[in-house]
Amino acid sequence: MSSTFGRLFRVTTFGESHGPAVGAVIDGCPPGLALDAAVVQRELDRRRPGQGELTTARAEADRVEILSGVEDGRTLGTPLALLVRNADARPGDYAELATAPRPSHADYTVTRKYGVRPASGGGRASARETVGRVAAGAVAAHWLREACGVEIVAWVESVGTSGPARVDAATVTRAAVAAHAVRCPDPASADALAALITAARDDGDSVGGVVAGVCRGLPAGWGEPVFDKLAALLAHGLLSLPAAKGFEVGSGFAGATLRGSAHNDAFVARDGGLGTATNRSGGVQGGISNGEPVLFRVAFKPPATIARPQATAAYDGSTVELAGRGRHDPCVLPRAVPIVEAMAALVLADLALIQRSRG
Amino acid sequence: MSSTFGRLFRVTTFGESHGPAVGAVIDGCPPGLALDAAVVQRELDRRRPGQGELTTARAEADRVEILSGVEDGRTLGTPLALLVRNADARPGDYAELATAPRPSHADYTVTRKYGVRPASGGGRASARETVGRVAAGAVAAHWLREACGVEIVAWVESVGTSGPARVDAATVTRAAVAAHAVRCPDPASADALAALITAARDDGDSVGGVVAGVCRGLPAGWGEPVFDKLAALLAHGLLSLPAAKGFEVGSGFAGATLRGSAHNDAFVARDGGLGTATNRSGGVQGGISNGEPVLFRVAFKPPATIARPQATAAYDGSTVELAGRGRHDPCVLPRAVPIVEAMAALVLADLALIQRSRG
Amino acid sequence: MSSTFGRLFRVTTFGESHGPAVGAVIDGCPPGLALDAAVVQRELDRRRPGQGELTTARAEADRVEILSGVEDGRTLGTPLALLVRNADARPGDYAELATAPRPSHADYTVTRKYGVRPASGGGRASARETVGRVAAGAVAAHWLREACGVEIVAWVESVGTSGPARVDAATVTRAAVAAHAVRCPDPASADALAALITAARDDGDSVGGVVAGVCRGLPAGWGEPVFDKLAALLAHGLLSLPAAKGFEVGSGFAGATLRGSAHNDAFVARDGGLGTATNRSGGVQGGISNGEPVLFRVAFKPPATIARPQATAAYDGSTVELAGRGRHDPCVLPRAVPIVEAMAALVLADLALIQRSRG
Amino acid sequence: MSSTFGRLFRVTTFGESHGPAVGAVIDGCPPGLALDAAVVQRELDRRRPGQGELTTARAEADRVEILSGVEDGRTLGTPLALLVRNADARPGDYAELATAPRPSHADYTVTRKYGVRPASGGGRASARETVGRVAAGAVAAHWLREACGVEIVAWVESVGTSGPARVDAATVTRAAVAAHAVRCPDPASADALAALITAARDDGDSVGGVVAGVCRGLPAGWGEPVFDKLAALLAHGLLSLPAAKGFEVGSGFAGATLRGSAHNDAFVARDGGLGTATNRSGGVQGGISNGEPVLFRVAFKPPATIARPQATAAYDGSTVELAGRGRHDPCVLPRAVPIVEAMAALVLADLALIQRSRG
Repeated sequence: MSSTFGRLFRVTTFGESHGPAVGAVIDGCPPGLALDAAVVQRELDRRRPGQGELTTARAEADRVEILSGVEDGRTLGTPLALLVRNADARPGDYAELATAPRPSHADYTVTRKYGVRPASGGGRASARETVGRVAAGAVAAHWLREACGVEIVAWVESVGTSGPARVDAATVTRAAVAAHAVRCPDPASADALAALITAARDDGDSVGGVVAGVCRGLPAGWGEPVFDKLAALLAHGLLSLPAAKGFEVGSGFAGATLRGSAHNDAFVARDGGLGTATNRSGGVQGGISNGEPVLFRVAFKPPATIARPQATAAYDGSTVELAGRGRHDPCVLPRAVPIVEAMAALVLADLALIQRSRG
Repeated sequence: MSSTFGRLFRVTTFGESHGPAVGAVIDGCPPGLALDAAVVQRELDRRRPGQGELTTARAEADRVEILSGVEDGRTLGTPLALLVRNADARPGDYAELATAPRPSHADYTVTRKYGVRPASGGGRASARETVGRVAAGAVAAHWLREACGVEIVAWVESVGTSGPARVDAATVTRAAVAAHAVRCPDPASADALAALITAARDDGDSVGGVVAGVCRGLPAGWGEPVFDKLAALLAHGLLSLPAAKGFEVGSGFAGATLRGSAHNDAFVARDGGLGTATNRSGGVQGGISNGEPVLFRVAFKPPATIARPQATAAYDGSTVELAGRGRHDPCVLPRAVPIVEAMAALVLADLALIQRSRG
Repeated sequence: MSSTFGRLFRVTTFGESHGPAVGAVIDGCPPGLALDAAVVQRELDRRRPGQGELTTARAEADRVEILSGVEDGRTLGTPLALLVRNADARPGDYAELATAPRPSHADYTVTRKYGVRPASGGGRASARETVGRVAAGAVAAHWLREACGVEIVAWVESVGTSGPARVDAATVTRAAVAAHAVRCPDPASADALAALITAARDDGDSVGGVVAGVCRGLPAGWGEPVFDKLAALLAHGLLSLPAAKGFEVGSGFAGATLRGSAHNDAFVARDGGLGTATNRSGGVQGGISNGEPVLFRVAFKPPATIARPQATAAYDGSTVELAGRGRHDPCVLPRAVPIVEAMAALVLADLALIQRSRG
Repeated sequence: MSSTFGRLFRVTTFGESHGPAVGAVIDGCPPGLALDAAVVQRELDRRRPGQGELTTARAEADRVEILSGVEDGRTLGTPLALLVRNADARPGDYAELATAPRPSHADYTVTRKYGVRPASGGGRASARETVGRVAAGAVAAHWLREACGVEIVAWVESVGTSGPARVDAATVTRAAVAAHAVRCPDPASADALAALITAARDDGDSVGGVVAGVCRGLPAGWGEPVFDKLAALLAHGLLSLPAAKGFEVGSGFAGATLRGSAHNDAFVARDGGLGTATNRSGGVQGGISNGEPVLFRVAFKPPATIARPQATAAYDGSTVELAGRGRHDPCVLPRAVPIVEAMAALVLADLALIQRSRG
């Protein structure tokens, strides 16, 4: 259960890493949106592995097919089914998982939860599951851009102990992020971040980091008070990503060290209405967007699968030594960028539609 | 909308700070649970303001009445309606809000969202809204304890720049937390944390901080893969609390600086099954509980309402000076402790029932 | 669970027949609606028992209190909590239910479902549960009228073998329905229907019947294709009423006997757009409103509780004789009229908001 | 929106009649169920058109592919994606729909709802949409059979003015239903029902009818009080089927004509517990299953598309004459049988899981 996200812009993803296909169904995309497969393909290409030495060598074309919901290049308002075949599945890579769960991976918990042990170990707890999110998020982001003028940009802010990069959230573009393979738009930091990744890989190890993001162009009024506050839904979406361990909106943990007089964002007159002089709130007040850019950060742990051997217990309690054999990223950060953007888009599209229902 | 949380253990809260009452309806509490108002009252008393110099002077008895769902001291399996009358509402305190929104409060966003301006400013974006959460969370925590052997303990870990306190999450008790008014169970830190709060108050200011929490006794298997991972739902719940700006599970942001070889939790034989030697995962792997304690932290910003005057813009764009007149906490941290516990209980009770449905 | 209905206009009801109170919380009522308790009270008064010889003698003032969501006579967009105290609970009336379940009542199934046996027998399976629906439906109907120009009228079409009454759905008013105690607006039929009820009561028996209803003023476009078709949601809502056993939209079962050439509703030019010459579709085509009046009928079985003794089995399998002692209606039909209207209003308000979200 | 049904056993369907594919994703199917494509294919074959002179000539192989959720012939507990390619789409058949909506079809309402006009007229309001339901329902029915011992049988009870057939709901089998092309297991009635269908077809017309169904083997306790009563959810599901206009459970509309003394089902000792001597309740009391067979009936209107010309209004208000050109059934009844069974299975599987969550 729970492969569904959202209330009005509602996405259901499916697919195992080593089964026939992965994908998503979007129910609730508004009608009349110009859409073709290229819009989705572009984002899948950004997520795709095998794009350089910083990511896994697994080669997947990841061609998307839109099975429904579009006619003559326009959405019908009916469900959009997005399908991506798995071209490079190699279940054999995982044979040894039958005896011992990999440390800090989902093998053990999935087995305990379902009473079945997927050949690939953690079943849906694979980075490949995010193909469905990215495909659906591409549609959400496209609608947000076309219908609402909202754009979402994420980037790698730090890797391991290196960072944070200095980035102006008000102006950073996806093009600037794409300029470096590590997806950090701060030229002064990018090489250092990339170096940490290659060093970890060369050591048969992995490394974590932080992705930062900004959503610009939101009107005031998105986000629902009490349980479905904008930042709460963003946190829900982003901490549901594989390897995510922390989330901040606006000033986040650093803001907790401040006094109110230093933290409050004073209102100022702007464009005939009000804006704020600073943005420690991160664009959200009382759970509702205030028209300023929404700022957030997501912490990703280092990937659990590493090439170097680790001592751990097998299911029978005996001690064994495991070493990663599959094709895995030494660092999820660069590839996490489009995934984070996709997930943020799914959250915002849903809140936009809910606010629209108020007429 | 969105005053409802949970899928099977489902809570709807209601009530304005300055209206007749606040409360909650729980739909889905299992039948046969021994329950009376005292179970709920105990938690409301922990949340209640006016308990000392560290919190607001607003005096509320906050007596709860259980209107339904219980007969002869046992739950029927039908909705539990929990009602708390507002005894000390003073809408007049907020008259000046008609002209200028308070900085970093919800006045502006609520007005923009709904097109109406509640007399109290932010309407449901008041700390008083949490009465319903605490009442409902008391029932959830009670069921988790009685039916599942799960206990949840939260505490103040840091205030402003002071902390973190040193607390053993494996053994800390609610009694230890209650021993100091600041609700920090580390005697070496508690006075310093409290001193920061009183200093902020004396300066007509406010201060933020971090609450840490642990959930012990969960079996392996709670939490749903993909979107409703255990940490994702905890983040959703806890970042929906007023003033919350950050969330971490397990190693969190600090874990993002590590390499996989240093971060992975090796399995070890334990009690005839498996445990982990370390717990950087925070009890959750692949979004599913692994049987280790669930560890999390929540960052709270300093309260927006402060006594000292602040320059800000009025709705008409003119610059005004605002000073807090209502009764407000200089720091939400101590009172946030039972609220955090309640919210975590709501998340876990729901996931427990969902996992039960698998039979 | 499942005391919640609706997606955007969402209602949760609570309360046992013989506990302290019944009521409802509405989450999602749009802001800015003029509302006071009188709007709700009016409908509760129509539902109230003790209004004449055709209904139960139980006397309940059923005064509603609005606990939240309204300020200065306008909705805030926040949850509306509606509370009605039970003034005339007499749990003692039900003591004998401990040994034998009443035939065709919910005593047996509730006991088997929950493993607990409410003092009142069926717990929430009481006509009193509908107080919450009527209160919430009053708000929904009020919003539909004020914001959308939609009105809903229901009436008693037949009682037992008497009927159907002849009523023009295009013009019938609530005033016309109120003109006779049996709530049938056809003067030529009303007395006969009432006579059947009094005859059943005099025989210590009960009798069933059919309520018909019409929703006028809907624009084309309400109702969601596939699973949440307008008639499907109406059926869901109306068959969730106590004692409801059948539902029809438009031509219903009679339409199933026709050929397409006789059943199809030809389009005609009307008011610059299109209407239909006939309305066998009942205002719904493909699950979506077409702008014609929505027509439906609901069959109610005779109440299970009757004064005359019935032979049945006790929980221990022995044969016993049961006779109704509580205060119960010999026929639910007249009182069902406002309940049916309320439930239809909850369905339509939700679909209206969902359609609005398309902008 | 609203192409999703169910809460724990949750199905999302997708696909246009004349697009690339139709299908469904099931989220929440329990793990460990033996499953392969043949289980689903069998039901799709029963639904498939082109099986004889009583149904449409459209030829579709309707081969299902299971894209996810199954490994080594067992469900993983993860989403099952079921895909069926459209092999025989002919959008050209519908060109004339651009000028005039077909009477009693969804062309007009879909256009008004979405502001776009699908090439096939009603978009998802096509009988082909039911492929996804049947595929998903096949899995639900399979789980109900294997895990719960529940079986569901539906049959054609009447066609137009012919019927009702006499069928013993306690013993009727799917094999008996399959014995006659019209899917009526009463040999004395089947030929007459079939004759009405061929007569309608020969006249370039269509005809409606009634499908009856029984669900056997349910334990007492399924169904949720108040809004999600078993019969209410069945009604929701079954009235969401194309062309459905009425629903009854147990005695239905006929029961509304009776007195309580004649309608009540007395309890009797049975198998160490209790059963009922009669079953006018249709296996449901207070919205909860009582262990007796669940009995229901669904009325289907005659198909709107008929070969003979009909006068109607075009979008511009002018009068035109329309005649059906696509390939359409003269009567949906025989093919509705597996669709009704599938939909009932989706309802019951969901309620079974919800009841399981009570432990």
